[in-house]
Amino acid sequence: EDRKKQLAQQVNDPYAREPSRSADLEILSLRPFNAEPSKDVLAENYFTPNETFYVRNHLPVPQVKVEDYKLVVKAGDSIKKEFSLDYLKKNFPHATVPVTIQCAGNRRRGMSKVRGVDGLMWDSTAISTAEWTGVRLADVLRHVGVTESFVHKHGLRHVVFEGMDGGLDGKYGASISFERAYEKGADVLIAWEMNGEELPADHGYPARLVAPGLVGARSVKWLESIVVSPDESQSIWQQKDYKNIGPSHLNRMSSANAAKEAPPVREMPVQSAILVPEDKDELSLKDNTISLKGYAWGGGGRGIQRVDLTMDGGHSWTQAELCDTQDRRGATQKYSGVGDTPNPNQWAWTLWQADLPVDASQNKFDVCVKAVNSANDTQPETPMGIWNLRGLLNNSWHCIELYRE
Amino acid sequence: EDRKKQLAQQVNDPYAREPSRSADLEILSLRPFNAEPSKDVLAENYFTPNETFYVRNHLPVPQVKVEDYKLVVKAGDSIKKEFSLDYLKKNFPHATVPVTIQCAGNRRRGMSKVRGVDGLMWDSTAISTAEWTGVRLADVLRHVGVTESFVHKHGLRHVVFEGMDGGLDGKYGASISFERAYEKGADVLIAWEMNGEELPADHGYPARLVAPGLVGARSVKWLESIVVSPDESQSIWQQKDYKNIGPSHLNRMSSANAAKEAPPVREMPVQSAILVPEDKDELSLKDNTISLKGYAWGGGGRGIQRVDLTMDGGHSWTQAELCDTQDRRGATQKYSGVGDTPNPNQWAWTLWQADLPVDASQNKFDVCVKAVNSANDTQPETPMGIWNLRGLLNNSWHCIELYRE
Ligand SMILES: [Mo]
Ligand SMILES: [Mo]
Repeated sequence: EDRKKQLAQQVNDPYAREPSRSADLEILSLRPFNAEPSKDVLAENYFTPNETFYVRNHLPVPQVKVEDYKLVVKAGDSIKKEFSLDYLKKNFPHATVPVTIQCAGNRRRGMSKVRGVDGLMWDSTAISTAEWTGVRLADVLRHVGVTESFVHKHGLRHVVFEGMDGGLDGKYGASISFERAYEKGADVLIAWEMNGEELPADHGYPARLVAPGLVGARSVKWLESIVVSPDESQSIWQQKDYKNIGPSHLNRMSSANAAKEAPPVREMPVQSAILVPEDKDELSLKDNTISLKGYAWGGGGRGIQRVDLTMDGGHSWTQAELCDTQDRRGATQKYSGVGDTPNPNQWAWTLWQADLPVDASQNKFDVCVKAVNSANDTQPETPMGIWNLRGLLNNSWHCIELYRE
Repeated sequence: EDRKKQLAQQVNDPYAREPSRSADLEILSLRPFNAEPSKDVLAENYFTPNETFYVRNHLPVPQVKVEDYKLVVKAGDSIKKEFSLDYLKKNFPHATVPVTIQCAGNRRRGMSKVRGVDGLMWDSTAISTAEWTGVRLADVLRHVGVTESFVHKHGLRHVVFEGMDGGLDGKYGASISFERAYEKGADVLIAWEMNGEELPADHGYPARLVAPGLVGARSVKWLESIVVSPDESQSIWQQKDYKNIGPSHLNRMSSANAAKEAPPVREMPVQSAILVPEDKDELSLKDNTISLKGYAWGGGGRGIQRVDLTMDGGHSWTQAELCDTQDRRGATQKYSGVGDTPNPNQWAWTLWQADLPVDASQNKFDVCVKAVNSANDTQPETPMGIWNLRGLLNNSWHCIELYRE
């Protein structure tokens, strides 16, 4: 009898058929699978290779056959359509957009040093970048008859997404504002390709949402339905998690109550981190120069205008060099920085590098980085003022200790 | 002979006919006139009374008769039109928009405590809010034949404004991107009314630009010409001043060189300050509660989602209450905060208030405020990392010392 139960549990194990994964991912949890790439991989690739793109799963990976895949699109009581992936590919213009996706919990480990927080202890690489190919959500909404007057007439204000991944709390779901979803320039995609390849199972095969500039949690994977609605997604991930509660709510009860009133996390704040060298590295420093590499991301479509480094706690600074990059077809792209007019579609990160001269007599170095985005917003020195019990949105100066070997 | 010269100088004195001003303004310079309101006035009025709205003049106030006023609008070689104010009023839909304008140098005095900076030593009130009435720049551009295909064909990317105020460096000028100018939702106005009254001389009579969400320097007063152009404004205020140079340029030569490469300041970062009580105030504190009032502003159209106060250097925090307000017709407006969809037109500030309980045994209090905008950007603890030789864009935590009397 006991053996039968055991077997039945194995067969019913929702995690029994997870995809195989790269050994280069640093695993934070197996069930659900959550993992981040090494710092080297991020530093060496403007577009993160698919197999090492950070993975943030909330639930078991659903098994989906593309030939069975249907995307339901609904609005009000009168609009309901179903699309196969093949239909989407053949009937809408394709768009390819470079987009950085970042987990709201990126750098939670750093925030937890101020005071304990809940959640997976992400280091600074719960962020990755890809070229995503798909169709524009705005085009699909227009196609089914969603217009500005239609949503106004029916009081529809949000676009609610559900994935095929489910569990005790229902299917994974999230929503974004109608304005953001409908605006062509917002580049919200229903994507089936990532860096020119079909989506891996961990990243939403066969189709996912990509919502540029917003917290990663809104880019729903294994996308099953799209509903234009009067209300936000009622999922726990929209209603309870992924809220910026702030440093005045020290216990779970207070934090949960505040979450009911707070808006969901939408756009993310300006972020940066050092990728190379790593914290606690011992360097030969033969030429008394520390060479650093890292990323900066403006959030919400805002570009990066400057990255600054300090080795004395903020008293003196050196400007980093912002790297141009090559797109996947080898053409040089000015994805980085802000030009003489700001690029409103700066959805992807800026990689940077710097060579810092150091004193021959010094053996320990405290290096911090912070970035400035096109709106002149910058990062706070420490996580003290942005601390929250969920450990979200740590964008304080990223600091590492280095030693002379 | 000498006397003749003296008389001639008096007659030619460009500052001889400056308007009369309220005694309630704190004067920073007389020639050109620069002055900021008291903190009480800002705290007590969602819309700053016109006579105490902060004044940032770069040059003498020009004398303009409305009957002589002509606004020139040019684009490429083929488009040139002139408008009287009467024509603008009669031929375009009117728009009234609540907009906060902030000087890039607001809170420069605080930044100068880190290290010396150039410029007028503004305290924390080089910021004010009004309801502005005028016509949309986008409507006027469309009317003269400026279309997206026209600007694309002629390589036009900027809209350049000139005022009637001039001096040795030419007329005051500034530019904004074509995208920002042309987008109806960006609410860029050619305004002739401020809080329901005609513009005062110090604020651009008879007509000025109001460019919401951007640094005050772009809202050109005494507006004389609008040119859609391939290039930015060549004025020193666009090309040399009002750039975010950063903390690595310690001397004027280095700062000036960096300014050549840097983008102009466009959107401003999230800001907040305490208005009541004032720094160094002695309070009776009979009920052992400090009641505070102040402002917060998200910059770039981003609303304020939270304002936090600390009395122990950032270790513990209390959330302030965001104030609703009444518009000038007495209707309650939810100008403050961010609702269930973010308001993309949150151009005006959020006033806040808080009651902080204090220990009966404590006699000195260090209070700091910082705000979080709808993009989850926040303010840095100190001006160390954002310091720049021009003293621009100080949005560090605003801190005051208070005493028990
Ligand atoms: Mo996340
Ligand atoms: Mo200014």
